[in-house]
Amino acid sequence: MKVTHADVADLSTSLHPTTESIQQENFSLVDVNQGLRKKCADLPRMRSTVSLYMCHLLCTGLGLACVVCVSCWSSQWRGGFAWDGSSLQFNWHPVLMVTGMLVLYGNGAVLYRVPLSWSQNKGPWKLLHAGVMLLALVLSVIGLCAVFGNHNASNIPNLYSLHSWIGIITTVLFAMQWATGMAGFLLPCTAQSLRKLLKPQHVWLGGSLVSLSIAACISGINEKLFFVLKGNTNGSQPYSQLPSEALLGNSLGVLIVAFGLVVLKILSSPEWQRPESPPADVSYSPLQQEEHQ
Amino acid sequence: MKVTHADVADLSTSLHPTTESIQQENFSLVDVNQGLRKKCADLPRMRSTVSLYMCHLLCTGLGLACVVCVSCWSSQWRGGFAWDGSSLQFNWHPVLMVTGMLVLYGNGAVLYRVPLSWSQNKGPWKLLHAGVMLLALVLSVIGLCAVFGNHNASNIPNLYSLHSWIGIITTVLFAMQWATGMAGFLLPCTAQSLRKLLKPQHVWLGGSLVSLSIAACISGINEKLFFVLKGNTNGSQPYSQLPSEALLGNSLGVLIVAFGLVVLKILSSPEWQRPESPPADVSYSPLQQEEHQ
Repeated sequence: MKVTHADVADLSTSLHPTTESIQQENFSLVDVNQGLRKKCADLPRMRSTVSLYMCHLLCTGLGLACVVCVSCWSSQWRGGFAWDGSSLQFNWHPVLMVTGMLVLYGNGAVLYRVPLSWSQNKGPWKLLHAGVMLLALVLSVIGLCAVFGNHNASNIPNLYSLHSWIGIITTVLFAMQWATGMAGFLLPCTAQSLRKLLKPQHVWLGGSLVSLSIAACISGINEKLFFVLKGNTNGSQPYSQLPSEALLGNSLGVLIVAFGLVVLKILSSPEWQRPESPPADVSYSPLQQEEHQ
Repeated sequence: MKVTHADVADLSTSLHPTTESIQQENFSLVDVNQGLRKKCADLPRMRSTVSLYMCHLLCTGLGLACVVCVSCWSSQWRGGFAWDGSSLQFNWHPVLMVTGMLVLYGNGAVLYRVPLSWSQNKGPWKLLHAGVMLLALVLSVIGLCAVFGNHNASNIPNLYSLHSWIGIITTVLFAMQWATGMAGFLLPCTAQSLRKLLKPQHVWLGGSLVSLSIAACISGINEKLFFVLKGNTNGSQPYSQLPSEALLGNSLGVLIVAFGLVVLKILSSPEWQRPESPPADVSYSPLQQEEHQ
């Protein structure tokens, strides 16, 4: 068989890819490489987002556990609820303070730390934040009314214990924080320079109020358990022998501390803060961009 | 008088500055302008630094006031100190816990927030931070020994109240935080990647321990005041009538909260954190640059 020049050229082409095909292959390899690099660079961000959502889940779970635990204590161990000046009216106090001042407040504080919301208009999230905080404040004030009403009906002096001092300081600071936040960040007439000045103070006092709430709750539960678990009456055990009510109250205290730690973890992580400018990989309408300011 | 060409040239020179002199004048104006701009740009930083030092001063003052107040309570109102299992041994407990777990701990936590130190080698500051924290931990453990010794000698059960649960949780977390900090940031063999992973947890738990300390102190002072101010014995007034000891104890609680708020303010401000890389306006030796890692 005679081999022509054309046969040799065909064979050469099939064995050795042309410069063009090599370039094409290289480009596709570069694409794959760039894709892999982007995925690798995204990994820590993804891991951080997953951790944040886990913390949110833990925060919700622990918050619910606190509310269930304190409601169970007041309803099952302390006789339930009423609004007649009796000790049954007092029972609203721990339930409303733990639910309002701690759990709702804590959840309201971490509201901006939801990455899904970062691509959205900030306005409605501001309103939701203010709304949750207002509900928390109202529940706390009703909780204070419950204890004042019970004390007045039973001729017990108000505001003498350290627990009551810390509780009232926390509520007053919370009300001031809400009013300043409302005027500073929700009223459209407030100057940007004033908002910039207010923000660090709002963030600091916001986080600190979680700590003060924990201190108020822990001292209150401790005081109540010493008041009611005196022992020697009706054969009941004193606090020092850790009867089931003492275990429930102490466990409520530990749950409150755990909830506070998770809230403080979410608040303390700079990478979980809502970015000042929108993330690069999300498309925005001009209206949304304005709302981010 | 005959006016020569040379005279006209001299007069022209004296009336109209040369291009060179105009350029020189312009340069000096640019220098002044740049200097003024730099000074204006430095103003917020200077204001921030002054605020930081004011906060440090307040932190030291409030911390000292807490120590004086608790020492005065134990020595003047509770009969002084001993180490014999009696209630005089118990008196060491509030003094050592407030001094160690709160005041020394809080001051140790804000140690890196001293701008004067930012231009210096980080090594000695790390050692000072670890040293202050170790002293705080040792004082806290002695404070716990004081109360355990008094309880055991008086047949009072240990660790049943919520105050004691929160106190022991805080001390255990503090000890773990110190050991992890020592292994993670002081041992030279620890990998940089591990340090990077540990740092956010160390910062979060460090700040949270201030909150837990406040809760433990407030609940402890509240409990002690209810224990000792029962009234009706020797004509003494009960807690509810706010005798001078109650006012002192409650004021100590308010001072503790104020101290905690200042510490949390210093810790929460990002502009007061020691920069990861040395500031641009400070000259460094290569050795110092290495130590900043």
